Amino acid sequence: MASTGAADEWAERKDFLVTISDNAVRTSADLYQEVQHFYGRQMRYLDDNHIEAWAATFTEDGVFSANAHPEPQVGRDNIVAGARKAAAALAEQGIQRRHWLGMVEVAEAADGTVVARSYALVYNTPRGGQAAVHLSCSCEDVLVREDGELKVRTRRVTRDDLLP
Amino acid sequence: MASTGAADEWAERKDFLVTISDNAVRTSADLYQEVQHFYGRQMRYLDDNHIEAWAATFTEDGVFSANAHPEPQVGRDNIVAGARKAAAALAEQGIQRRHWLGMVEVAEAADGTVVARSYALVYNTPRGGQAAVHLSCSCEDVLVREDGELKVRTRRVTRDDLLP
Amino acid sequence: MASTGAADEWAERKDFLVTISDNAVRTSADLYQEVQHFYGRQMRYLDDNHIEAWAATFTEDGVFSANAHPEPQVGRDNIVAGARKAAAALAEQGIQRRHWLGMVEVAEAADGTVVARSYALVYNTPRGGQAAVHLSCSCEDVLVREDGELKVRTRRVTRDDLLP
Repeated sequence: MASTGAADEWAERKDFLVTISDNAVRTSADLYQEVQHFYGRQMRYLDDNHIEAWAATFTEDGVFSANAHPEPQVGRDNIVAGARKAAAALAEQGIQRRHWLGMVEVAEAADGTVVARSYALVYNTPRGGQAAVHLSCSCEDVLVREDGELKVRTRRVTRDDLLP
Repeated sequence: MASTGAADEWAERKDFLVTISDNAVRTSADLYQEVQHFYGRQMRYLDDNHIEAWAATFTEDGVFSANAHPEPQVGRDNIVAGARKAAAALAEQGIQRRHWLGMVEVAEAADGTVVARSYALVYNTPRGGQAAVHLSCSCEDVLVREDGELKVRTRRVTRDDLLP
Repeated sequence: MASTGAADEWAERKDFLVTISDNAVRTSADLYQEVQHFYGRQMRYLDDNHIEAWAATFTEDGVFSANAHPEPQVGRDNIVAGARKAAAALAEQGIQRRHWLGMVEVAEAADGTVVARSYALVYNTPRGGQAAVHLSCSCEDVLVREDGELKVRTRRVTRDDLLP
């Protein structure tokens, strides 16, 4: 049962769920829009193939994990290598990909760390072809501030089709 | 003519349309993000099968109506019963559903009641299968505050495929 | 290579990209939500066939250009004429269209002009039929204020399927 699987997974991580729920209402409009804005910029960098700019949206020691990958990508260099490989594959196939993050939830910890959850949809459009939904996912980020700017310290992407 | 049908329906309810239009610009950023945030949380509860938490986002006397249902669901208990039935059917089919609300419009009445309109997309992902758009809808909510938190007092969902 | 094509195009217009990037973090929450709100209202007008209300969201001398059109539509009258033609075709086909703008980026110039970028998805739902993604696009707007309200002075829509 897919949705029960998702619920089970969250139940195991109750601390995180509780954090988001308890603090959500108290998040400032400033922070909420900043996270939305950050996602707009970050995904555009990736989708428009500005990989260096995209890489700079992660901390140097950033970690990217996904239920589609056997191992997390650890460190900006590895995250960039993964992105370059994916971008090359898309370019070869002539596909313009667009990542949409939405249904954003944001909570701020006492130490200034920001926890954000969102839904993610990935759309593919082949050159001269029909746009289509490629994947539906959930995304959980821990964001930190460096020189005033938000950066992803950890990102966990859960593809809905791979839920237990 | 589908879109004319939608326009006709809104024309009949001009009071509502005017309320949104006249007040939209004056809605505070705080309220706007609060509604967005509320939707992120509320839909996640539903999609991750936290039905009790989801139920608590409606008032005790909440009403859920839809052009797909012959009768509205009246009261939190009936809304919960409907959600449980839908969740069980999805679990049996092994489908992870995701509700996206977007293109949000918000207006606040003098008495503090909040009127919100949005577009809604429902995505289904079968376990091991391909994500796909299931439905495109419009959603109109009347939100009220209980102990400082927004709750849905009335929700009306209009499926685009069932427009006259 | 579709994504490289997109990157090339942006590279040519580096001024715009830099403007968005440099100012994005500093955009106020008020302006960001105002642009989101504006898009919710504007697209609803179009999709619900309130063409006059939609037209009023452009300046009198507004320009709408798209990589799908050989020539830009110049002036509100021409933009309205284009919208009426499109609406009539959809009505004849019995299609309810919904425009979603998301992943919004906003920057404000010193003169108060607002530059906004977003992703755009167009969904079609035939009466009694299946909702589906029709197009994936990028949208770049220059917004100006008239009597306090945002209006589109220039809009450029780039369909992903038509990228070089």
